[in-house]
Amino acid sequence: MRIGIYLTGIGQKLISCSADDSIEAVARLLTRHHIGAMPVLETAGRMAGIISERDLVRGFSERGKGALELRARDLMTRSVVTCGPDETLSCARDLMKRHGFRHLPVVKDGKVCGIISMRDLLEGRLKERELEINVLRDQVIAARNR
Amino acid sequence: MRIGIYLTGIGQKLISCSADDSIEAVARLLTRHHIGAMPVLETAGRMAGIISERDLVRGFSERGKGALELRARDLMTRSVVTCGPDETLSCARDLMKRHGFRHLPVVKDGKVCGIISMRDLLEGRLKERELEINVLRDQVIAARNR
Repeated sequence: MRIGIYLTGIGQKLISCSADDSIEAVARLLTRHHIGAMPVLETAGRMAGIISERDLVRGFSERGKGALELRARDLMTRSVVTCGPDETLSCARDLMKRHGFRHLPVVKDGKVCGIISMRDLLEGRLKERELEINVLRDQVIAARNR
Repeated sequence: MRIGIYLTGIGQKLISCSADDSIEAVARLLTRHHIGAMPVLETAGRMAGIISERDLVRGFSERGKGALELRARDLMTRSVVTCGPDETLSCARDLMKRHGFRHLPVVKDGKVCGIISMRDLLEGRLKERELEINVLRDQVIAARNR
């Protein structure tokens, strides 16, 4: 399955923050939208990285209260690895496994158009496998009735 | 697949914290062990709830620096929903979906023996489906060769 088709199917609404946003503002955005990560944009709209719940928790574990003096750019993961909407779910999964990421930004024509998580990928692959099982079951029944 | 068998298979080492631990200590434990959530125990070892990266981020979004004055018991989710190691992965999935949780403690004889996440469940179901596909493929080939 193509990443773009999957994201359209789940109706993802892209939430992002600015690299200059405070860590408190980032925490509020993640909480309000029930998301685990989002792209971080520079003023010009170019993607600077990804910031996740895990980045925030790591920040607090390393700096305590000092983490709240920081900006998104200080705790984000500077992501250079992206995927395109026309790539497949299994291609995105290989990228995540290779680089140890749980989220991957989806970029089209130089602009972020979505973000895909390991959980999205697992759910997408599960759907593919369930379709495959239905097709195979039909084949078994058809072969038995010949 | 039984939850206990799945957890043994992935070699889960149970990490937990005390209800009196500071939020900074909780953040350090989650970060050090690369985990998204863990059970919170009372002094007597009884489970009081679960605390997750999401709970911490919600705490910071609502209270800013004040969140770091809190203890695990103040931000944890007081979980009364648990599952047993002999229950199935799909049973745990139904419980998570019904209650909107991403993590579920696994309890045996009144003691927490593990924690299962939505991602674990998806990976477990994917393995089950892939086994099923192999069996069905063999059946199709066998039926064709009769």
